Amino acid sequence: MIAVDAMGGDRAPETIVKGAVAAAQKGIPILLCGDKQLLEKILTKVSFGWEKLPIQIDHAPEAIQMDDDPTKSVRSKKKSSLVCAIKAATEQRAQAAVSAGNSGAVLVAAVLHSGRAFGVRRPAIGSFLPTKKGSVFCIDLGANVDCKADHLFQFGLMGHAFVSLFCGIEKPRIALLSNGHEPYKGNEQVKKAYDLFAYSHLNFVGNIESRELFDDKTDVVVCDGFTGNVMLKTMHGMVSTLLFWLKQESNNLSWFQRVLFYWNKQLFKQIKKRTDYAAVGGALLLGVNHPIVVAHGSSDERAVCNAIEFAYQAAQEKRVDAFNQALKKIVKQEKSFTGVVRQKVRSLFGLRRV
Amino acid sequence: MIAVDAMGGDRAPETIVKGAVAAAQKGIPILLCGDKQLLEKILTKVSFGWEKLPIQIDHAPEAIQMDDDPTKSVRSKKKSSLVCAIKAATEQRAQAAVSAGNSGAVLVAAVLHSGRAFGVRRPAIGSFLPTKKGSVFCIDLGANVDCKADHLFQFGLMGHAFVSLFCGIEKPRIALLSNGHEPYKGNEQVKKAYDLFAYSHLNFVGNIESRELFDDKTDVVVCDGFTGNVMLKTMHGMVSTLLFWLKQESNNLSWFQRVLFYWNKQLFKQIKKRTDYAAVGGALLLGVNHPIVVAHGSSDERAVCNAIEFAYQAAQEKRVDAFNQALKKIVKQEKSFTGVVRQKVRSLFGLRRV
Repeated sequence: MIAVDAMGGDRAPETIVKGAVAAAQKGIPILLCGDKQLLEKILTKVSFGWEKLPIQIDHAPEAIQMDDDPTKSVRSKKKSSLVCAIKAATEQRAQAAVSAGNSGAVLVAAVLHSGRAFGVRRPAIGSFLPTKKGSVFCIDLGANVDCKADHLFQFGLMGHAFVSLFCGIEKPRIALLSNGHEPYKGNEQVKKAYDLFAYSHLNFVGNIESRELFDDKTDVVVCDGFTGNVMLKTMHGMVSTLLFWLKQESNNLSWFQRVLFYWNKQLFKQIKKRTDYAAVGGALLLGVNHPIVVAHGSSDERAVCNAIEFAYQAAQEKRVDAFNQALKKIVKQEKSFTGVVRQKVRSLFGLRRV
Repeated sequence: MIAVDAMGGDRAPETIVKGAVAAAQKGIPILLCGDKQLLEKILTKVSFGWEKLPIQIDHAPEAIQMDDDPTKSVRSKKKSSLVCAIKAATEQRAQAAVSAGNSGAVLVAAVLHSGRAFGVRRPAIGSFLPTKKGSVFCIDLGANVDCKADHLFQFGLMGHAFVSLFCGIEKPRIALLSNGHEPYKGNEQVKKAYDLFAYSHLNFVGNIESRELFDDKTDVVVCDGFTGNVMLKTMHGMVSTLLFWLKQESNNLSWFQRVLFYWNKQLFKQIKKRTDYAAVGGALLLGVNHPIVVAHGSSDERAVCNAIEFAYQAAQEKRVDAFNQALKKIVKQEKSFTGVVRQKVRSLFGLRRV
């Protein structure tokens, strides 16, 4: 069973309910968390005979809004749909939780109720981004806006564990997102993280510029959540802008050319497909003990349905357990190693703590 | 006369010399800074009869490499081409300087030799980025990787001055780049800057996500140099990736469809043109007292030539003087205003300094 935060997201609760119904129709058992009366009303409106679908409702009278303060709202709104969904997953009433709501609150609730995995200080959102010839795993995409070098290094460890486990790459290449290749490039935390990576036994390939992200030069890209989020959304914005321009320019064509253009429309559909975030719909929150999937706040019906399917698959394949075990191994390996290195780095830079 | 750092850039000196020759052929007088013997050799190779062109050489035996530490190298390599070019502009031997070299070093040398404009703590790189229906002025694009809230606020003032002066918009809308709309979104410095902007008398429209950057919702976007640089390069990377995919997909077409596709090639050229960074070639370093143009490190011949033309125009129209005057006015206006506000903010957040 998958717990779904029905009240979270820009278009909640209607779109979320529609997505959940679509997932239930595919045979995935759903635990909808939210105001019972309201949800029953929407369900009846959305799908006639929904009672026959594998949908249960968990009554949660409160809702955390997108603009609520994460920490405060999780602590004060204990009966909110978001907290209920995550608690359902951690208390084994469901195998996984999905929320398109306030991602900061999801993070706080996940840490509070699911707990952090071994060696993790800050759980992070990691996902694959499309590149020219394949994809690259990018971590963090928005969970931690303020990061220290240590956090970035841990994201690297998580990226290593994830890609080596699920892509079968033994020594995935790991790069640090920066404004230039040179080791002295980057903001303070990136520069410090560079040293941590350079002295680790990860397959660190140095700094990477966001321009080359698409060139398949690395398997994992590490960045803080603020930069990662900006980067991800720039990609989405750029794609939609290019398609907009294309449409606009095509208005200037002669009717003959326009006919040719429409003949080629299939092509653009293929391109659009490659950058379609809704195809997966969500990303696993890495570094906690249960499968918790964070979906885009602006998710539409299809994205929600896909996010639920993604969570279902992750739960079936016990991905989180496998990941946490792989992570534990690499963290232990690294800890015995970095103790020495960190002393070196500290003395090198005259720092008390990197 | 425009001073050009001939030894700076990934493809220096050959490409820079070629670009300078192209600019000289358009009638722009050039002062090439670099190793005299080497430059003469390249000039002879590149352009037969270059002696007739308005090109002079300023002998600078040293060169600052792309991976040199900015502050150290500017201080130690006083006879470097980069420092020479900037000094030529500040000592009135040239009207402007252009460098595609180490941008950190350009910033340091500019502050050292040209000095900061009234009210500016950190000069910044500002430039227009294409949007769906026009363009948006983005500041900073890479000069300052570590920024405090105060710096971001000053970038906003510079953006206001620039856009109101050169685009004729009286009260340009100013937005802060963040990972969400809500005031509590963003990293530490963005959140603090939000308050500074909110209490200023600028036309502040709140946070903006990078996805909406292209939607013409604002005239100025403020961000730190690290994020701005990542964003800019993501845009470039995404465009080239989309064109790559398009080419790849077109290989799967039938020969008939392929013919149609090539018929439409004109369309893609138009699109490519819109995102062509080389069309301007460089950006003014804002907040110093002389026109100093920073070009992309990877500039090709055309980009260098266009950057020189851009510098020439800026110098002819005395853009820097006009900008600094406009900036002075707004800074003064704001200072009398923010003194009060800052006290409020400080007491509100219990901060000693925002």
